[in-house]
Amino acid sequence: MALELYNKSNHICVSFSDLVTGEAVQANQFLVIDNGHAAIIDPGGELTYSRLYMALGKYVSVRGLDYIIASHQDPDIVASLNRWMVGTNCKAVVPELWERFIPHFTTPGRTKHRLVSIPDQGMNLQLGNISVKALPAHFLHAEGNFQFYDPVSRILFSGDMGANLSSGDLDKPFRKMQEAIPTMEAFHRRYMNSRKVCEYWANMVRPLDIEWMVPQHGRPFKGKKIIHQFLDWISALECGTDLMTQDNYRVP
Amino acid sequence: MALELYNKSNHICVSFSDLVTGEAVQANQFLVIDNGHAAIIDPGGELTYSRLYMALGKYVSVRGLDYIIASHQDPDIVASLNRWMVGTNCKAVVPELWERFIPHFTTPGRTKHRLVSIPDQGMNLQLGNISVKALPAHFLHAEGNFQFYDPVSRILFSGDMGANLSSGDLDKPFRKMQEAIPTMEAFHRRYMNSRKVCEYWANMVRPLDIEWMVPQHGRPFKGKKIIHQFLDWISALECGTDLMTQDNYRVP
Repeated sequence: MALELYNKSNHICVSFSDLVTGEAVQANQFLVIDNGHAAIIDPGGELTYSRLYMALGKYVSVRGLDYIIASHQDPDIVASLNRWMVGTNCKAVVPELWERFIPHFTTPGRTKHRLVSIPDQGMNLQLGNISVKALPAHFLHAEGNFQFYDPVSRILFSGDMGANLSSGDLDKPFRKMQEAIPTMEAFHRRYMNSRKVCEYWANMVRPLDIEWMVPQHGRPFKGKKIIHQFLDWISALECGTDLMTQDNYRVP
Repeated sequence: MALELYNKSNHICVSFSDLVTGEAVQANQFLVIDNGHAAIIDPGGELTYSRLYMALGKYVSVRGLDYIIASHQDPDIVASLNRWMVGTNCKAVVPELWERFIPHFTTPGRTKHRLVSIPDQGMNLQLGNISVKALPAHFLHAEGNFQFYDPVSRILFSGDMGANLSSGDLDKPFRKMQEAIPTMEAFHRRYMNSRKVCEYWANMVRPLDIEWMVPQHGRPFKGKKIIHQFLDWISALECGTDLMTQDNYRVP
């Protein structure tokens, strides 16, 4: 299922949501094209590589891909790195904090001169005629972690923030927070690192002109109303280290 | 360089510290054998797979390996998973929290019936005649994270806790905390998630009879004195989310 989130005047954003099979957690992969230049955000692991490569063919010449972009270092994010390094001429855009960890995905020397590192404070990444904003989202969940904002489509690719374990309707945006919360509350309570940083993140995001918030797992959020409701919800959610006590650290 | 940490009465513990090449961060891989049964702790990525496979041959029949054990989901920990699943008959022991993420390292179906999951509270893992303790170390750094304690050799395989960026003498234990701190302070401040959870972890570890504390990066710590100095140091270290302010979350 390729969901075209935006397609106008040489600018295209596509979400792929049905490429994961078996016992692994569902994950979305994203393609952003501007004036013939293309990037994949969070391309996924070995598990999705071949199917994603084929699905992309409808939109781009895959060998000519400009970038694969990794929000953080997890296997569902970018464990396919070695394949992309071999199969295309792209560069890999990765958080500076994981720059020396990420080459462990590949055979020796494969990433040499092909990594673009995102500094801790974020950056603007040129793609065709636009600048994609890499927004800091550290500890949400990874220690070094970024989200990506496309100012043309006004999509926030929000990574694990807003991730939901929805089993169907992956092409249908949530309309109400009450519908979304049961699919995402347990995940956010355990994987997000603390309420304080959730609030800092929400404060940063609130003034942006966002039409879609599209997480890496599950269904998207569409429209300012529900997105602002999400920001209020997460700003108040005790999570991660907030909830840990000595009981969580006992010799078994 | 294979450093034999322990070798007595059918029980062997070996650390491999020189298998990483190029621009990736140095990492140690560990072999634990008890009465002919063998496990590798944090085998590493694509980068080290072939060299580790060969190095293990001196000690075990690699195809007969019982387990590879992953403390968490990072590439330097276990990005080689697909190779081990193909090249041996081992099971992979992984934190329950990453159980559905880790199959993204592999081609579809590869991990089916071959994952052993470690529940959040930890577990005792039978290996030969001993029980290896999987100790909770959540948020240090990964949200779901374990360390491994071998009661025979009295080694704590401490993962990222105590990780140090030492460029040489990897087979020589630190003797003084003053020597270790400059090689590890910046890492612990940025990657460990909060002082509170560091202290819970230290409280759990303090009563254990530990002779070696062996992190996944850099040099080991030997002897109760320096290990207890480490526990005191980390219990007081502001880190991770403690140090984040709104300034770390700004639109670039």
